[in-house]
Parts: sequence; structure tokens; C-alpha cells
Amino acid sequence: MTEINGPRLLEDLRAFSQIGGRPDGGLDRLAWTEADLEGRRWLADRMRACGLDARTDPALNVFGHLAASTGPWLLLGSHTDSVPRGGRLDGAYGTIAALEVLRALVEAHDSLAEHVEIVGWADEEGVRFENGLIGSRALAGELNPDDLEEQTDWQGEPVAVVLARAGVDLERINEAHEHLDFLNGYLELHIEQGPRMEADGFDLAVVTGIVGVHREKVRTEGVQNHAGTTPFRMRKDAGRAAARAVAGLRELVQAVDQEAVANVGAIHFDPGGINVVPGRAEFDLEVRHGNDAVVRGIVHTFHDRLHQICAEEGCRADADFRSYEPAVAMDAGVMAALERACQSLSSRVTKLASGAGHDASVMSRHVPTGMLFVPSIGGISHAPEENTSDEHLVLGARALLCAVREVTAALSGGRAQASTSGS
Amino acid sequence: MTEINGPRLLEDLRAFSQIGGRPDGGLDRLAWTEADLEGRRWLADRMRACGLDARTDPALNVFGHLAASTGPWLLLGSHTDSVPRGGRLDGAYGTIAALEVLRALVEAHDSLAEHVEIVGWADEEGVRFENGLIGSRALAGELNPDDLEEQTDWQGEPVAVVLARAGVDLERINEAHEHLDFLNGYLELHIEQGPRMEADGFDLAVVTGIVGVHREKVRTEGVQNHAGTTPFRMRKDAGRAAARAVAGLRELVQAVDQEAVANVGAIHFDPGGINVVPGRAEFDLEVRHGNDAVVRGIVHTFHDRLHQICAEEGCRADADFRSYEPAVAMDAGVMAALERACQSLSSRVTKLASGAGHDASVMSRHVPTGMLFVPSIGGISHAPEENTSDEHLVLGARALLCAVREVTAALSGGRAQASTSGS
Repeated sequence: MTEINGPRLLEDLRAFSQIGGRPDGGLDRLAWTEADLEGRRWLADRMRACGLDARTDPALNVFGHLAASTGPWLLLGSHTDSVPRGGRLDGAYGTIAALEVLRALVEAHDSLAEHVEIVGWADEEGVRFENGLIGSRALAGELNPDDLEEQTDWQGEPVAVVLARAGVDLERINEAHEHLDFLNGYLELHIEQGPRMEADGFDLAVVTGIVGVHREKVRTEGVQNHAGTTPFRMRKDAGRAAARAVAGLRELVQAVDQEAVANVGAIHFDPGGINVVPGRAEFDLEVRHGNDAVVRGIVHTFHDRLHQICAEEGCRADADFRSYEPAVAMDAGVMAALERACQSLSSRVTKLASGAGHDASVMSRHVPTGMLFVPSIGGISHAPEENTSDEHLVLGARALLCAVREVTAALSGGRAQASTSGS
Repeated sequence: MTEINGPRLLEDLRAFSQIGGRPDGGLDRLAWTEADLEGRRWLADRMRACGLDARTDPALNVFGHLAASTGPWLLLGSHTDSVPRGGRLDGAYGTIAALEVLRALVEAHDSLAEHVEIVGWADEEGVRFENGLIGSRALAGELNPDDLEEQTDWQGEPVAVVLARAGVDLERINEAHEHLDFLNGYLELHIEQGPRMEADGFDLAVVTGIVGVHREKVRTEGVQNHAGTTPFRMRKDAGRAAARAVAGLRELVQAVDQEAVANVGAIHFDPGGINVVPGRAEFDLEVRHGNDAVVRGIVHTFHDRLHQICAEEGCRADADFRSYEPAVAMDAGVMAALERACQSLSSRVTKLASGAGHDASVMSRHVPTGMLFVPSIGGISHAPEENTSDEHLVLGARALLCAVREVTAALSGGRAQASTSGS
């Protein structure tokens, strides 16, 4: 019986977290930095150490499979880059767990090993340039190098220069796509990055989908005035109009759907003088839900309410659409197989929609895809305090191993359907 | 019968507005700039042209009175500096009207001329350094050069350097105070800088007092979190708490007092990411009313409400006190005299508390003081569009002339009482 080597998994995680590691236990391994490149070399070395063929593709994704195997493979993995001042588990956990699963299969001479490939994706986080999910989008053939080409990073360096220094030729990045034909599915294990599993006492979660994310910049416009000489009844206060819209956002969203979330993360009043009634205000709005139609409904309801508030305040409003990342549903057959795998290991298994984006969003548009979550302590992520108990880290890897067997059986029994949008 | 020369008043206003004038009709005559100094020289020249002794004191205030007169004088005037991108009337109107009043008295060989002095105050606006009202505070002996000494302007230049270049020796600035003993009252004519007189159809207003102004920075603190993975019920959203407090501010203030005003002119969420629940927020609060106790009551009520909101949102709040400028009441005897003067010229006279600070606030603590307002078109001020009809500009100067006679009579009949706080 093939088994995960728990201590080895934890030791690899610890060793990997030293590359770009911070004194506070956090991680600075931003995509395309020297730490990121060193992490990729380390991963390839670990793959080779257990007898795998390791390969870095034109997008800098690191793949590993048994030298003798020819595919198609069930791909397991996650990303190896971090946000600035990030945590040691986001992405790294799923990558190292995938390594441990295939290593365990290889050591046990398990025939499943021939049907599995592992990956450490490049630039999932997208903090250096506007777009993330670079590695998985390159594999999926979804990447438009022209979109990237015009960007510069925060130091003003063009994408092409940064990537070239990391060894990536932007012109050739889509050659990563050639490998997609050799894959028949994708599984990603990840920390939840939220507080729900811990709060409700769950050990494992099967991800049902990834929420759609709408982003826009909202502007209100009134009349700038002297705050001492203008009575309330004569003001057209763009700041008050914006504050009213932000203050009522949660109730508005929950009236549409209890599972939906929204956020205003930034706000600005213009001209910003303490004694000046704001003539303009703007804020960033984000709305998320697993069903595209629900997201659209919330945005529509919010705009109605915003215009109503502005009419009351003598102001005008407009919204500048920024982006929409459609909702993604995980493959039904894969989800059923993941659920069987999890239930064989714990009685505390749930289903969750992921509130954050993942490489699995991209893969789900091309091959049957599934995701597993383990709990995040305190729900903290993208911070040095990000953590998960050793027990849950090992349990997650064991669930992934079981899942590989279940999903492979399901895929060979009758190929599961790749899902598209979630609505 | 002594009469204002309306065309000459308007022509002087036009000529004065060319010094630091902007192509859009506005004014850039910031305190201590070359344009400001040129404006002061021009004013002194205009004083001399009608036979006055013109004198610039150690604070750069420009005074003028008949060479033969020895005081005590009733002082008339306003300030000659502007805010950046300001209007042509704020301060300049009251200064030029004072010049026209004394000039008319001199030309008519009116004996009142010997009892009147005029002034163009230095740095009322206080935009270059933290404090304003520099000229009148120097005369009043209220200025602490040490408070100024530590400041720098927006280009990083120390106050002492900027003032020395303008010809002011900070060590000697309080010598301006020596002149206070020669004054027995102060009158200031000014544009309203708000919309109330125009909206209600008044030609002239007797100012009853100047509001007290409380300023503080309010901070809310919650827990920064991922906006996609943290359900509403688990958030401690410092941005939402701040927005709720700002959104409800007007109703809270009006429930305490219908005449009070308050403003939030700036707000900031931290860390400011579109997908991050704000862990901290801060905003600038200002509260104004003619009665200090009402201002205190509103601030107290707001803090109660803020803490209630934060308790509901799982956040904490604190307020960082910035400043309090106490309310000021105008002299009762002077007000009565001003009212008689105004009513002799128009049936549309009202009484108003000024929502903005003036040099008259300072003077009211030392000599019997009064103020008159004329309407501002559209209530616009501190902007190039700032304007008042020619008819109202001339009417205001005529009212000031009448007021000089009324106030002088009242002061000699029994010296009116200098008032202090407004509560």
C-alpha cells in the first residue's frame, strides 16, 4: 500500500520555505526574482533526486514525470511564487504535496506513477505585472504576449527585459502550450486562505468552483465647496454620497445572495482639504460569487442604489469597468472522485467555492479539473503568519494520493467532462 | 455729504486683481510671494496718492491714516493675500473698500477722516505655513514666533528664510503689537463666501460672530483580510466602519443643532488593495458652530456613535485631536451700529454667523469689532469664479462708510465692550 511520508513532506516544505525566506517566517519569492528562479532550480533538483525527468518549459513552469512514461498524465501541482511578505504555504504546499505523492508512488513501484505528472507553475500571483496565472495560461494557450509586452514592473522595467533576465523569451512563451495535449486532468491541493473550514471544524474540502470576480472604479461627482460657509442643505457632497454607497454595500449584497461577497478596499476624496466639501470621490469595488449571473445582479443592484443616493445628494455617479474573471465550475466527475477520496480519510469533509483565483481556474477550461483545500489557521493568508497544522498538511497530501487513484479510475472509466463557466 | 465713488472703487479692485492675476480671472497672491509684496507696495502707493501716511509694520501689515491725525483710530480693512487659484475679492474687497471710505472722507474734508485708519493685513489665509492670521495676530500680540520658527513651507524652506526674503525679521515681528494701543475699534467688510445671502435675497449682513472650528483625525482599526476568502460575517472591516460613521455624520450633527456644520474632506483605507479588506481607515473631521458648547456636544455625540459602530463591526476607533479655534462673538454695540447703517441703505439686511475665520476674530479679542458681508454669487469662494455684483460691491462700501459714522458715534457715546468667547 503506497503511503505518504509525512516527515519528508514537512521537511521539504521547510527547506523550500528557506528560499526567499524572511526572518519573520514569511516568504519573499516574487515571480521572476532570483529567489523565484532558485526555488525552481531546487524543485527540479528534488524531482531528479527521486528519479523523475525534470523539465522547465518556455514559460518557466517546472514539470516532472517518470522518465519511461509517455502520458497522457494526470497533472498535480500548484505555483511556487509568493506575494511580497507572503506565507510559506500558498502555492508551495500544493507543489511539494504533488512531489511527495508522485515520489511515494515511484518508491512503491505503484503503476499509477506512470500516469502522473507534477508541476510548479510560474507567476500565479501577478503582483509584479498586472496579470497573474502566467504559467498556466501559457500552457493553456490563453496568454497574449502583446498584453504583457506593454507593461512595466514597479521599477519601470519592461516585462520583456525582466523575463529575459529570468531566461524567458516572451516570443516563445506560448510554446509551453504544446504540452497540453499530453494531459488528461489536473488536481490542485491548496490551503483555504480563508477562515470557513476552521470555523466550522472541517479537515478537508472539495472545491466546487472558483468565484467570478467583477472589478470597477466608482466615481461620484458633486460640487466642491467651503465647508464652513456652505450649509448642509446647499451641499452637493460627493464624499458623503460615496460613503453612503460604501456603508450600505454589505446589506445590499446579502439581500441578493448570502454567499456573495463584495469589498471596497480603497477610497479617495478630492481635493482632500479638511475644510473643503469633496467635489469628487472615487472608490474601488469588487464583487465575487460562484455564479456569473449573481455577480451581474449584484453589480446592477449596486448601480441602481448608487444612482438613487446620488440623486438624493445632488451628485452624479459613474462606474469605470475594470475586469471580469468569470466563475469556474470544477469537473463533476472529478469532484465526486475527490469526495470519495476525502471521505475515506475523514468524516469532516465539506464542499466550498473558492473565493480566490487559482491555476485550476485556467486548467478547468481545458481538462477535467478538481481542487482540494486544507484549513488555514485563523484564515490568514498572504502574510507571514499564514499557517496550517502539520496534521492537516499531511492529511491533505494523503487525500491527494487517494484522489489520484480515484480520479484516474474515473477518467479511464469514462472521461469526465471539462466544465466551462459556472452560471 | 460724503459719498463713495463707485467707479473708482471698482477700478481699484480691477487694478489690484492684476497683481498676481491669472488668465482665468483668478488670483495667485500667496502670502510672502513676490506678487504679495508687489500688492502691498501698490496699496501703500494708493494710500499716499490720496494724501495718507502709509506705513508697513514689522509683520508686513500696511497701514494708512491722515498725516496730521494722532489716533485713537477706528481701524478698517481686510487682508491682501490669496489662496492658490483664489478669487479677486476675498480680502481684497474689504481692503480696497476701506481705502475708498477713508479717501472719500478725506476728499470731502469730513472730520471723521481723522478718526479712521485703514489696513491691509499680511498672511490671513495661512496656506504657506500651518498658521494663518499672521498679520492681525502680530498686531494683537498673540503671535508666538517659536511656533512659526520650526515650520517649513511646501518647498522645504524654513519660515524664517521665507519671511526674511520678504523683509520680515521673525525676531521683531511682535513689535507690530505696539500699534494696538492707538486703536479703538475694528470693522471688516468681506464677501460672504457662502450661498446663504443670495439664496435668501439679502443685500447686506451684519456678522454676529465667527464659528468655533474643531478638527481631528479619526482612525478605525479592524483586521486586514483577503476579500475573496473572508465571508462578511468573519470580517472586521475598518473601511466599512469608517464609511458608516461618515455616511451618518450629517444626520447626527443636525439632530444636535440645525445651524451646525461638519465635514469629512479626506479619507484613506489601508493597505488600499482592491482585493483586501481594509485593516485600518482614517479620515479628517471638522465641526463648526458659533457656540463652543455646541461644537463640544457634537464631537462627543460623534465619538459615541463611532464607538458604537466600531463595536458592531468588531473594530476599534480613536480620534487624534488636531486643533480648536474658539467661537467669537462680535461686539453688541458695534453690531447695533452696523445694523442701523445697513438699514439706512437697504430693506434686505440680515444677521449671520460667519462660517469662516477672519482677521476680525483676532481683533474682536482686543477692541470692539464688527463685520459686514455682501453676497457671493453662487456662494463660490477660494476659486477664480468667486464674484459679487458691482451693485453689491458698491453698496457694501457705502454701508461701511455709514457704519464708520455710526460706530464712531457709538464708541464716543460710551465705549462698546470687547467680547471674548461666543458661548
